[in-house]
Amino acid sequence: MTVRTFAAEVEQELVDVESQLLEIGEADFPWLGELLTHVLGSGGKRARPVITLLVGKMYQYDPALHIPMAVAVELLHTASLVHDDTVDESSTRRGQSTVNELWGTDVAVLLGDYLFSSSAEKVCFTENVRVIQLFSRTLRDLAEGELREIDRQFDWTQGEQPYWQRIEKKTSSLFATAAQSGAILGGASEPEVQAIRDYGLALGTAFQVIDDVLDFDGDPFDVGKPLGSDLLQGVLTLPTLIYLDRYAQAGAADNPFTILQRGTHTSEERKGLLGAAISTVRRSPAVRDARDIAKAYAERARSALVGVPTSSSAKDALREIVDFVVERDR
Amino acid sequence: MTVRTFAAEVEQELVDVESQLLEIGEADFPWLGELLTHVLGSGGKRARPVITLLVGKMYQYDPALHIPMAVAVELLHTASLVHDDTVDESSTRRGQSTVNELWGTDVAVLLGDYLFSSSAEKVCFTENVRVIQLFSRTLRDLAEGELREIDRQFDWTQGEQPYWQRIEKKTSSLFATAAQSGAILGGASEPEVQAIRDYGLALGTAFQVIDDVLDFDGDPFDVGKPLGSDLLQGVLTLPTLIYLDRYAQAGAADNPFTILQRGTHTSEERKGLLGAAISTVRRSPAVRDARDIAKAYAERARSALVGVPTSSSAKDALREIVDFVVERDR
Repeated sequence: MTVRTFAAEVEQELVDVESQLLEIGEADFPWLGELLTHVLGSGGKRARPVITLLVGKMYQYDPALHIPMAVAVELLHTASLVHDDTVDESSTRRGQSTVNELWGTDVAVLLGDYLFSSSAEKVCFTENVRVIQLFSRTLRDLAEGELREIDRQFDWTQGEQPYWQRIEKKTSSLFATAAQSGAILGGASEPEVQAIRDYGLALGTAFQVIDDVLDFDGDPFDVGKPLGSDLLQGVLTLPTLIYLDRYAQAGAADNPFTILQRGTHTSEERKGLLGAAISTVRRSPAVRDARDIAKAYAERARSALVGVPTSSSAKDALREIVDFVVERDR
Repeated sequence: MTVRTFAAEVEQELVDVESQLLEIGEADFPWLGELLTHVLGSGGKRARPVITLLVGKMYQYDPALHIPMAVAVELLHTASLVHDDTVDESSTRRGQSTVNELWGTDVAVLLGDYLFSSSAEKVCFTENVRVIQLFSRTLRDLAEGELREIDRQFDWTQGEQPYWQRIEKKTSSLFATAAQSGAILGGASEPEVQAIRDYGLALGTAFQVIDDVLDFDGDPFDVGKPLGSDLLQGVLTLPTLIYLDRYAQAGAADNPFTILQRGTHTSEERKGLLGAAISTVRRSPAVRDARDIAKAYAERARSALVGVPTSSSAKDALREIVDFVVERDR
């Protein structure tokens, strides 16, 4: 299954989204246009704008409101990717060189700012202060989530709770806003707006957990980055946290995590230990456990839609997105 | 004269601004609080929020609107400083170590994002879509101005025009928005809103030109950075552009600019040539000419206020800001 299956429902609307994204790329000076085209060109799945559009379709869909909202959501997502790649010093994304790799950190910082502000400008076209407010809040959540991640790097005893806090901020929040804004702009009732928000939150959480699972058991070629890349950077995701909680024998002297926690190591030793730690998590049942948790969140996303009365092909597509998110292999 | 002279007019209001800035620093987790307190703590002149408040005082001042607007303006300014320092790899600002110096580029990028989004959230408290739109546009202008600057680095034949384009985006736009939003939220008539915007634009331009003049003839201790720091990074500001246009003998073989434009050099040679170029501009009448242009913009800012009918102590203070901007030595 590909994203295109459920996106077919909003194929025409996506054409408008793409054309507004292209317009953003028609900048005042040529070099900026080149930069924007590089990051806004094809390659993205456009999953978040598809959610906004599908939710809109369940209610009173208005292209003058839902299209700019969908564009804003995609711009915000793109901006955060540009800054994330800069923060992580990543050199490739979706098979292309990153902005920081091609033009340097300075340009990537400013281009991300440009995209953030373009998204804020787009959302103003809705003229809906509640939606604009929600959007600004989400912008803040993304940055806070990433800062929380840095705050807990190499913290071996953090437990699961900080993980759930940071992924809600850094990932689920944008899925939730993509869905919720589609409902608000479509004139949904307040209980429906909340149900749709819950759908987005649970879907985003399932999405992130699967991302973290694929970092351990995906095909590195499909995933597009080396296995265990998070743990190598000291970021403890759900499979690692479950392993440490349920499967690590407390204090076992030959366990790489035990050795990492105890001593100080040269960077070479540390790299070796982290490699061993990745294999240890991969071989443990923690990866399967994490996948089960993602499935439980997917179920929660599906249940949230039960509270939405209308039955429609848009609603069916929103259910298919849930299946896609937990079944994908990259 | 210090900023405090004209700020006295809005002393009480500034207390509220400071307390809302402090609230932003009361973050959900301690480390973020520490980062925010570092950048939002004292040290800033708060010139931009003072402008918003003073303009508000000329019309129907409403603390529920003007205070969050002033806070938003200061947050946006602070965010752009955090990212500018990251882009320029600056290690100090206002006598303190920068965020990128203390915590690294990754943290500085994310903290800047957090501040940008906090500013966007604050401006939503005005519930005025026009002001929110203006604000988002300004956010984009700042990034575009900086990107334009990078685009023209080491471009010796650019002429003055790109300079005026980029400083309008990177500096004047925020002064203009600080002033204009105060007027809109105070219920000023449309011609007055435009006059106040013109005031901000001209004031911001005078401010930036003086900044660029001080980079050549200021006291490095007062200015807080080495002389000619822009030119050393390949950024051509007004004194250099005027020198090249009016005073450089075309093709004079011993002129450092001629040598820089012609050959390729080792980084050591280039540094020496840039140092010589800085001295050449300093000794030329171009610095005085640039200062005269700043004064002309200051006069334009004063004239813009003539169109504003009310005579008030707030209006007097807005005039004093103009004097301060062109008379300051740092």
